[in-house]
Amino acid sequence: MSPPAALDGVNGSSVPPLTVEGIPALRAKANPMPKGVAPATSSDEFKSPACYTKPKSKRWDHILSTEARDRKASSLKAAAKFLKNPNLISLGGGLPSSEYFPFEGLDVKVPTPPGFTPQATRESGTTLHAGKSDIRDGKSLYDLEVALNYGQAVGAPQLLRFVTEHTELIHNPPYSDWQCCLNCGSTFAWDTALRMFCERGDYIMMEEYTFASAQETALPMGLKVAPIKMDEEGLLPESLDETLSNWDEAARGARKPYVLYTIPTGQNPTGATQQVERRKAIYKVAQKHDVFIIEDEPYYFLQMQPYTGPDSEPVPPPANHDAFIKSLIPSFLSLDVDGRVLRFESFSKVLAPGSRVGWVVGSEQILERFTRFCEVSSQNPSGIAQLTLFKLLDEHWGHEGYFDWLIELRMSYTGRRDAMVNACEKYLPKEIAHWNPPAAGMFHWIEVDWKKHPGIASGKTREEIEEAVFLAAINNGVLVSRGSWFKAQGAHEEKLFFRGTFAAASFDAISEAISRFGSTLRQEFGLN
Amino acid sequence: MSPPAALDGVNGSSVPPLTVEGIPALRAKANPMPKGVAPATSSDEFKSPACYTKPKSKRWDHILSTEARDRKASSLKAAAKFLKNPNLISLGGGLPSSEYFPFEGLDVKVPTPPGFTPQATRESGTTLHAGKSDIRDGKSLYDLEVALNYGQAVGAPQLLRFVTEHTELIHNPPYSDWQCCLNCGSTFAWDTALRMFCERGDYIMMEEYTFASAQETALPMGLKVAPIKMDEEGLLPESLDETLSNWDEAARGARKPYVLYTIPTGQNPTGATQQVERRKAIYKVAQKHDVFIIEDEPYYFLQMQPYTGPDSEPVPPPANHDAFIKSLIPSFLSLDVDGRVLRFESFSKVLAPGSRVGWVVGSEQILERFTRFCEVSSQNPSGIAQLTLFKLLDEHWGHEGYFDWLIELRMSYTGRRDAMVNACEKYLPKEIAHWNPPAAGMFHWIEVDWKKHPGIASGKTREEIEEAVFLAAINNGVLVSRGSWFKAQGAHEEKLFFRGTFAAASFDAISEAISRFGSTLRQEFGLN
Repeated sequence: MSPPAALDGVNGSSVPPLTVEGIPALRAKANPMPKGVAPATSSDEFKSPACYTKPKSKRWDHILSTEARDRKASSLKAAAKFLKNPNLISLGGGLPSSEYFPFEGLDVKVPTPPGFTPQATRESGTTLHAGKSDIRDGKSLYDLEVALNYGQAVGAPQLLRFVTEHTELIHNPPYSDWQCCLNCGSTFAWDTALRMFCERGDYIMMEEYTFASAQETALPMGLKVAPIKMDEEGLLPESLDETLSNWDEAARGARKPYVLYTIPTGQNPTGATQQVERRKAIYKVAQKHDVFIIEDEPYYFLQMQPYTGPDSEPVPPPANHDAFIKSLIPSFLSLDVDGRVLRFESFSKVLAPGSRVGWVVGSEQILERFTRFCEVSSQNPSGIAQLTLFKLLDEHWGHEGYFDWLIELRMSYTGRRDAMVNACEKYLPKEIAHWNPPAAGMFHWIEVDWKKHPGIASGKTREEIEEAVFLAAINNGVLVSRGSWFKAQGAHEEKLFFRGTFAAASFDAISEAISRFGSTLRQEFGLN
Repeated sequence: MSPPAALDGVNGSSVPPLTVEGIPALRAKANPMPKGVAPATSSDEFKSPACYTKPKSKRWDHILSTEARDRKASSLKAAAKFLKNPNLISLGGGLPSSEYFPFEGLDVKVPTPPGFTPQATRESGTTLHAGKSDIRDGKSLYDLEVALNYGQAVGAPQLLRFVTEHTELIHNPPYSDWQCCLNCGSTFAWDTALRMFCERGDYIMMEEYTFASAQETALPMGLKVAPIKMDEEGLLPESLDETLSNWDEAARGARKPYVLYTIPTGQNPTGATQQVERRKAIYKVAQKHDVFIIEDEPYYFLQMQPYTGPDSEPVPPPANHDAFIKSLIPSFLSLDVDGRVLRFESFSKVLAPGSRVGWVVGSEQILERFTRFCEVSSQNPSGIAQLTLFKLLDEHWGHEGYFDWLIELRMSYTGRRDAMVNACEKYLPKEIAHWNPPAAGMFHWIEVDWKKHPGIASGKTREEIEEAVFLAAINNGVLVSRGSWFKAQGAHEEKLFFRGTFAAASFDAISEAISRFGSTLRQEFGLN
């Protein structure tokens, strides 16, 4: 069976896609926002009519773990159906009374667009106020009384609406029954996904260099990793196809894998970004072998302007929101005609990691199962954090303000990336050090040609040279991460890499650090 | 081997135990609070010298699951040891810069003791302010810059200090190497504990009526439940001993269980509270069979004043903090000479469930493993929530203010419990309805003598009568929970129960609801 043609096109529906300008009308036609504690909710309440003109996703029963198949909806929550009678007095639930929540108000001071800098915010930021009973008092759709009580695992409808709209505006998944579920972050989502899809003894597929913590989550569950080769655009579809086409169950002692974990944009650690044709090619291989894709995308909005070199004019920011959205590489979610993608969304790199609020997007079936796991583990993300994000994103910035913020962030990271790459151009010995300017993310991946190391003659190994350079760099006052820390299990390392991040240090410190690393390399490799 | 004698006594150390009055001196002698992002920390930094005069806990290697044994510390975090050189520039970590966190200030309005009511707080509450760089500015030990960034799984040291001190003040565990780990709530802690201690096919032990969600967490992991019988004080040590002494591996198809899940105080759903002698007896059985105890204690501080009946004077509140602490039934943790208890602590019933911040207490070995799980799933609880709690508990109330709040809460729940029990005395038909006034918690457990139902003659079953009463009650405008919703797997139900909660409804509504339930029972049982 050949893959559906919709992969390369857009369905011919006459219902127009959702736009930022269309949000007020969409909201006006929707059901009123629920007012009570822990209301049942789903993205379906917030998606635009255009979503429902699309075909439904496929079923994924065959990839669910025994644990995932066996999870049931909460039996106590089933009693909620009796609560519709307004005269009923419930002695049923175990919800504490809000009179015992010792918080009467919460204020946050946040940027007033376009003044996004800390200084501008201190001088002319906006203070957003959440009262305890704002909903009852008609002052807001969300308040402390509700946020401080228990919530549904899928999250508060007030914030779920925003992320659902955002997802449709940016990704507009090509099937109808997609859903979002708020959660306490993508680290948790990945742990949950592994338990949903895998059994002890299974293999999962990961990029040959991958986020170390993602691998460390999986291995103690009894999972193994089949590493997929990469180039400067990241994961290679040919390697994925080869791995799967040649899978030998007997030799491997495990069934053919069907879970692919990938960081498509600004990959950690390599900084590689899959361009759209690469993503389409990977998706086609996934269809061919019926692979389910976990798309971990914390760096999606850290896509940057092109690198123009130390002496050229920087590329100006996107002219408007449309240009900004068009500048983004399509996600796997936006190509996903089958519903074979579970996308991890994160606020950690674009607002604050400490919120511990993220969300996942996927098909109704997958999200229903995911939510069942959350109900009996993390439950909902912190209501204090959800309320804070709602106040900022929905009541204050709106989608326009959030896009403005993301454009500002794009330009900031472009500047940081430029500072690092310019420093590399200036300070690193090009005889042995090679790199591509990253197009997204926080990381710069520097290859060092270890075979030119003078110790080779006396039998020094790749590992020994990596160690020596790493320690010499620390001695010279710069810490960079060793590439081998990110090696996927079973991957064979031929090359030698170091990872530097340009996310945190000041511009001057980045330049100084790279200068020190350059000196280290010259010293270690006996160069002038 | 007989159990250590320390169970019934106190060690003879001359180092005085920690008191509220001793906290300032303890803090003054401690290392300075870490100032940076995601600092390594542990309860050891905050425990008093008296802790270290006690013997160490036992080792629990033999009860760890394969997954728990295989979990390793984060490899990337190992690089942190190189960061001690102050002149080092780190390009290593993936922490975003706080200049991109769009929050410059956070304020919360909270009660000023002793004015704890919502009205008093609105009128004369205190507004607590957290600025972005309060640590650098010398204004506070904790700020937004740190709270909004990544954190350690064990939690922020600022809040960890408070819960560690609180744990020592209240429970003072009888072994030296106890630790706390903040987490995103006891639901998550239970999911994690099951994965730490159990393998598919294992049995766990639970009260024969138990928190439905706790059982629903476990069953899809392939676990089974051995129900332990209860009386009005909850779990029966004789039943625990009998279950374990007579365990037949061949008949059960599973090894002898070693994990006991119990809610000792205000048990959900029965409202039963184990008194201290009961706890000691259970602990002795646990020692005899080498059982590990999960002590889930959300209702510990909902212990109430004794019920005195509708016409008697209520018992006045504890006279002072010492009297309050002495009024609390000793926890399993406080009896735990072996380190065989993992205690789940919660803010959900005493501050707000929506914080999604709780903590666990247990031995160093168990807590180290627990933290490894958190690192790759929930990570730390939301920094926004941790900061909010720190501002309230540590900077504003301190331990004294928190105790005052807990005493206030104790009296409020006493009033609520009294309202419900008084209503039961007034409205329920005592020919068929029986109850004990709960000593703690949110729940009132009402037994209905189903064998007196007129339908018995025509062959009606216990189940059918439960269903009929439940539906008739809804018809009469009151929802109570059916006892069978809480039945542990494998338990045999001889009796018929309904659970009512007095936590949420107003006093008038509680009275009206019980009146309606009384009418329902009379109507269903054909009484006058």
